[in-house]
Amino acid sequence: MTELERIERIRRSAGKAKGMTLGIGDDCAIFQPKPGEELLFTTDMLIEGVHFLRDTHSPADIGHKALARGLSDIAAMGGVPKFCLLSLAVPSTTTDRWLDSFYKGLLDLAKRTQTPLAGGDLAHADKITCDIIVCGSTPAGTALRRSGAKPGDQICVSGTLGGSALGFATKKGAAWKRHLRPEPRLKLGVLLREKLHATSCMDLSDGLSIDLHRLCLASKVSADLDGDLPSFPGASIQQFLHGGEDYELLFTVMKSVELPGQIAGVPVTRIGTVRKGHPGQVKLDEFLILPMGYDHFRTP
Amino acid sequence: MTELERIERIRRSAGKAKGMTLGIGDDCAIFQPKPGEELLFTTDMLIEGVHFLRDTHSPADIGHKALARGLSDIAAMGGVPKFCLLSLAVPSTTTDRWLDSFYKGLLDLAKRTQTPLAGGDLAHADKITCDIIVCGSTPAGTALRRSGAKPGDQICVSGTLGGSALGFATKKGAAWKRHLRPEPRLKLGVLLREKLHATSCMDLSDGLSIDLHRLCLASKVSADLDGDLPSFPGASIQQFLHGGEDYELLFTVMKSVELPGQIAGVPVTRIGTVRKGHPGQVKLDEFLILPMGYDHFRTP
Repeated sequence: MTELERIERIRRSAGKAKGMTLGIGDDCAIFQPKPGEELLFTTDMLIEGVHFLRDTHSPADIGHKALARGLSDIAAMGGVPKFCLLSLAVPSTTTDRWLDSFYKGLLDLAKRTQTPLAGGDLAHADKITCDIIVCGSTPAGTALRRSGAKPGDQICVSGTLGGSALGFATKKGAAWKRHLRPEPRLKLGVLLREKLHATSCMDLSDGLSIDLHRLCLASKVSADLDGDLPSFPGASIQQFLHGGEDYELLFTVMKSVELPGQIAGVPVTRIGTVRKGHPGQVKLDEFLILPMGYDHFRTP
Repeated sequence: MTELERIERIRRSAGKAKGMTLGIGDDCAIFQPKPGEELLFTTDMLIEGVHFLRDTHSPADIGHKALARGLSDIAAMGGVPKFCLLSLAVPSTTTDRWLDSFYKGLLDLAKRTQTPLAGGDLAHADKITCDIIVCGSTPAGTALRRSGAKPGDQICVSGTLGGSALGFATKKGAAWKRHLRPEPRLKLGVLLREKLHATSCMDLSDGLSIDLHRLCLASKVSADLDGDLPSFPGASIQQFLHGGEDYELLFTVMKSVELPGQIAGVPVTRIGTVRKGHPGQVKLDEFLILPMGYDHFRTP
């Protein structure tokens, strides 16, 4: 199959990119924004040997995860996804069947979340390399940021943590499924913005310890973990604190907010309190928690 | 240097992302579109061993080229660049000096073309892998597409062709510089849209033969090359016809348009005529020209 034929096949299976003026096939995709909306942009790479292995991850899992990571960033700002672009490089030995299955995994999630694939790039490389770009929107001035947490705010998370790390270690059961098929918390993100007026939010991609550290740094506050710790069943405290790729939302709400048990079908739990203090510092029962989550650039 | 420190360093050297509501450092970048503008999006990968070699390409050349490729797609639609995002994966052995120099090459072009770097992703991989995302804009409904060429239109190109392929072969002189430092034709693109009312346009990234074939396919027309052939000095007819990475603009204008010798300081040349005929077919003096330019997915 030539590049032109492959692009034509992707264009057909992607369907018409609803809401786009022009989708796959020209030099650029064209998008007509609505008045009053602010646009959110995120990019996320997913690389063979770094983020996944071909032996353990099916092509459809990889396609799903590539898009889910980007959608999770949109959810973290309370956004509604508008469209996505995909840059994909694969070895020249990659079969049409692998590619078809990869695109099916990605496009199934794209359809379910109304995030049409509107363009991208195709190339060859030694290792499978995906870069997903997702555009989302919120009413102007309302996007949730990392930097708005204030002393006294409640620190909360959605779902349970540590499941993805447990699954990665055991390769079985619900935890492994959790690792393979993360679910972006899009509806929750919108409700955190609209109803709970969250003061800050981010998604948990690298692990609670480093991500909460980052949120606290951005908000120039510290954090005390003094609430419940909603662990994924079977996950260790290490997996809970430092395991990455849960793609749950970490957010803060004002003290006065009465937290419901769940939002949009997802349990939410208060895990701590924002404090005035050394920016970025995270404590659990007076013990300092070092940011141990995944950092691509930490010197080994 | 940790990922956080590297991101902070990039953020500082990128400067404030003018025109962006929120730049580097949160889950998403935030952009506030202006009423009446249509947004253009393009992504382009640049991969070590496929698009460049570390032995022959300096980090600053790679940074420049990564962004230039994306800007060239914006130019091809007559767009004005608004901002860019960069996903970058590098081997863990990559030095801070290499990264600083890479970002300098990219950011120098970003500043010159007013395309602030507003976000992206960082990861590790065996081979250096860049994916640039550029957002541009045009007044709604005016973007130049590949699909508008009509029988009788003049087919034109900017600059000279074959220089990049010649430079790649010889690694010296002006041709090599041409290969290393392509110049996106942004001003030309805008004038083709505003003044010459070009009927179609695309950038020459993979070679005239395949790119003109693609333009003709999209417009459902054929092409006769019957004008001048502005070769880069020293380039062969093969390099002229099939060499990639010149990043000049290929465009069509109505028969009635009097083509100036140059536009925005760049020579423009009529090279042929759009014909009714087998869609995608390209002829030179009655000889069929097969699309031989670069195709990532052609079976070897």
